[in-house]
This record gives sequence, C-alpha cells and structure tokens, in this order.
Amino acid sequence: MSSDQNAPKASEGDWIEEAHSDVTLRYRVKRRLFNGESAFQKVEVVDSEKFGRMLFIDGYVMVTERDEFIYHDMIAHPALFTHPDPKRVLIIGGGDGGTAREVLRHQGLERIVMVEIDAMVVDACKEFIPQTAAALDDPRLDLIIGDGVGFMAESDETFDVIIVDSTEPIGPATPLFGDAFYRDVDARLSEKGVVVAQGESPNVGAEGQAALFQIVSNAFPIACAYNYANMTYPCGFWSFVYGSKGVDPLSDFDPVRVANSDLEFQYYNADIHRAAFALPSFQQHLFTSTKR
Amino acid sequence: MSSDQNAPKASEGDWIEEAHSDVTLRYRVKRRLFNGESAFQKVEVVDSEKFGRMLFIDGYVMVTERDEFIYHDMIAHPALFTHPDPKRVLIIGGGDGGTAREVLRHQGLERIVMVEIDAMVVDACKEFIPQTAAALDDPRLDLIIGDGVGFMAESDETFDVIIVDSTEPIGPATPLFGDAFYRDVDARLSEKGVVVAQGESPNVGAEGQAALFQIVSNAFPIACAYNYANMTYPCGFWSFVYGSKGVDPLSDFDPVRVANSDLEFQYYNADIHRAAFALPSFQQHLFTSTKR
Repeated sequence: MSSDQNAPKASEGDWIEEAHSDVTLRYRVKRRLFNGESAFQKVEVVDSEKFGRMLFIDGYVMVTERDEFIYHDMIAHPALFTHPDPKRVLIIGGGDGGTAREVLRHQGLERIVMVEIDAMVVDACKEFIPQTAAALDDPRLDLIIGDGVGFMAESDETFDVIIVDSTEPIGPATPLFGDAFYRDVDARLSEKGVVVAQGESPNVGAEGQAALFQIVSNAFPIACAYNYANMTYPCGFWSFVYGSKGVDPLSDFDPVRVANSDLEFQYYNADIHRAAFALPSFQQHLFTSTKR
Repeated sequence: MSSDQNAPKASEGDWIEEAHSDVTLRYRVKRRLFNGESAFQKVEVVDSEKFGRMLFIDGYVMVTERDEFIYHDMIAHPALFTHPDPKRVLIIGGGDGGTAREVLRHQGLERIVMVEIDAMVVDACKEFIPQTAAALDDPRLDLIIGDGVGFMAESDETFDVIIVDSTEPIGPATPLFGDAFYRDVDARLSEKGVVVAQGESPNVGAEGQAALFQIVSNAFPIACAYNYANMTYPCGFWSFVYGSKGVDPLSDFDPVRVANSDLEFQYYNADIHRAAFALPSFQQHLFTSTKR
C-alpha cells in the first residue's frame, strides 16, 4: 500500500462527517491520509485537528488517537482481571491493534491469537496509526488475516478469554452478532472462559444491544453488560456484553490483582471495573434479566 | 411572549448546529419554535427529528426531551438521597424546570426555592417544553426571577441542599464558577449541607472542571466529582462536583432509602449512585486530591 496512491488531498477547511440517524458529527481534518475500499468495507484514515489520527470504517469512527485508550482499556482489562488465570486469549476483529496492545501488557499469557478479516485495516493502521497498530508486530501475537467466524467454527483450540472487537453489525461483522457464532464461542472457551463483545449503545443501538445480550444470555450461565463513554462514539454510553461459563465479573473480581499487576491505565482501575457494571434503569429494562 | 413573533420558519432539510472546538454536532430540525435574545443570552427552542424539543442557550444544547432525564436524575437524586433529612432545597439556575421537577418528587421537603436569572428561558420552556417546565407552576416551588449570585450573598436563609444548575462558565453563569460564590454557598448551607454543581466534562472541559473542583475543595471538608453520560452533551462523560460540610456520598448513602421512597427513575438507582463516583484514572489526575 502506498500512501501517495491512496491519499486524497485535504482542502482548506476540510471536514469529515459521520452521519448517524440521530445526529451528525463533523470533525475538522488537517490531512487525509488514506482512503481505500477493500473486499469488505470502506477504510479511511485522516489526521484531525482535535482527535489526532482517526480510522473510519464505512463512514463510522472506529478509533482516534485521542480517546482510543477508553475503548481499549475497557474491552481488554475487565475480562483479563476477572478470569482467575488467563493463559490463552483470542481476539476476533480489532484490526487497528489497540485491543492486542492492551492484552499484550498482561503477564503470564502463553498464546494470543488475533483473527482480522480485512488486511487493508491492518495495513492502513500499521502505516498511519502506529499508536495502536505497533502492537501487531509483536512476536507474541499470532495475527491471522482471515474470517473470524470460519476460524471459530473450524479451530480446535480453546481459549480462556475471547474478545470480539467488531464494528457495528453491518458488513462483515454481521455474523458476529448471531446465535451460531456464539455456539462456536462456547465450544472454543475453556472451563471458566470469558467472552467480551462490542455491544452497541443502549441509547442509539438499544435493539441491537438487547438482541446480542439475549444471544449471550442463551449461551452462558453468566451474562451481563458494562458501560463506558468515549469521546467520539455518539450519544452517551456504549457497552460491552460479557458472558462466562463460570466467572462473575464482580464477585470473582479481586482488586488486589489490579494493584499487584503494576500496570497503570489511563482509564481503567478497580473502582471503574466495578462501577462499569452498574446499569441505568432504562438499560436494565432492555434485558429480560441479567445473570450474575 | 408570542410564538408567532419569535418563531422563524424551518426550511426543508433544516439543521441546527452546535459548534464545539473539538467537534461539530448537527441535529435535523422539524420546526423552529422560538428564537430570542434576552439581556443575558441567546435562547432558542427547536423541535428536532430525533431528540424531540431542544433548548439551546448561546448555541449550546441545554435540554432535549429525549435525554433530559439523565441530567436531571443525576443533578437531583444523589444529593437528596445522601443528605440524611433534606427539608430545604435551593436551586440556582435550572430555568427549564427539569431539576425542580425531580426535586419536587421527594417527600418531606418543606421549602424549595429556585432562582433563575433569565425570564426568557422560563417563559420559552413553559410554552414549548412542558415536559420539564410544567414543574415551574407547582405551588410548592418558590420561583424567583433574579440573580442567583446576588440572592446567595443577600439571603439569610439556610438550605440543606443547594443545586447549581448552570450553563457552561460563559455569560451570566461565569460567577457561579468562582470562589466568592462558594463562600456564600458555605454560609447558606445548613450543618450537614450538600452542594451539587454542573461540573463540565473531564474530556473537553478538563481545565474548568479542575478549577471548580479546587474551589469546592477549598470551601468544604468533603469534595468529589461524579459522572454521567447523556446523549447530547458531546465527547463522553460529563460531571457534577459535590461538596458537603459533613455528608459523604458513599459512606453516608443508604440504598434502602431509594427502595423505600417508592420513586422510580429512568436513569438513577442505588447502583448507579455508587458507580457514578468511580472516576477514570485520567480524571482522578485532574484533582490534587479528592476528599471523601
């Protein structure tokens, strides 16, 4: 990939716009760095005035240099500090590398596999967003460019933690929000395994969140959701859905492990871990019942 | 005020735009309902496609019908369920009426005073946003149109809970973010009094939040911040700053009181109360130290 070839020129006063059905967000662009169309989706990287470099997929903001720490802390650390002894971690999606970077900070892991469907996302992020994508060159990471759904169906490995770091349920991510995929997640998870998945917003994606929760709840004895708010996902809280064969994210969580890890996080800490699982009343009502 | 006189026509494909330094948000407008300029600020009400009726002050979204419950639950209920026996409540600002509405739901209050500087906000909301402003006609509310800063300096009443429901520190709200105002808050608070103030965003208003926290921290033995995310305040979390002469929002909070109140809230609940006070690490670093 050549940046010259794929980089359209930015004009004076250039903006990039993200059009949701509820609200339109516009970011002032300093420089357009990459614009490509893969077999799966439209991939765009810009350098913005206020959020640094930003990755857009199909017109939606995925990652910005300024606030990606929030999402990546919260997709990785609650599961890794809840599972009693994680050794084997699988990431589905996550082509920008931010999730892999946070997983790689944990000691004691023996195998980390990441399956990203779109080489263009990986290549564009390696070239233009090293803040997240530098992790993808880590020799401890087994990075597979391929279909996560197929991998999950065909693999005979088991994992202690599976992280589904997907876009919204459009395009190639659609099957990641389905029953069949979670039957395979169940088969690939070890005895006390934990799965965490990007779970949409209870505000602007309530239907999708409720549907995903129901699927995870059907598949696992422990199922709940937890929240975060970053700067560039619109309309307030967004959530991760958490499922486990036997590890409860509150009663099995020992804050001493966070302190003893000697890791420092910009967003995550033991108080935030527990607080994230408290849901506003309207969000509780999205779920028939949470199981914790 | 006449709606005919002040209502500009909306054109096909009309949008209203909120320009922050970090991001621009645009909302599709169904109907422009009110547009006025008071002695203090620019006041605008529109009916939007997705958020219902919206109040803008000086170009910033203050209230929308769709998400105002989040802000109003969180400015009112944590203090009222923490103070052991609130009888007298003062609201500074809050001209849309949403905070008064939530305060008025609590049993056992003996006096509720609200001091709003701008009659145009009150009148426009009474006419166009009754969802919040209907509360302003409640006979239990002593609504004073006047300067909250002057009221605070001149009053000899005391209050158990003081709520500072202000805009951002621009225009008439500027002194509400100052030391002198908080010396008067201290004088007007009863022995175990609690003050809660709109505290900006740790993401896009970090400097303002840190400054307000320092002022509240200088004035009171207990000072901390707590967070919420609504749909139309940009860039993630926003905060309230909490100060008290002697009531701790966590150790003095009894969740049984929430259950026994028989009140139901769309956002607030006992878990959310406790969770809101957990701060992300980067936000903790904004404060020299929280005092709880």
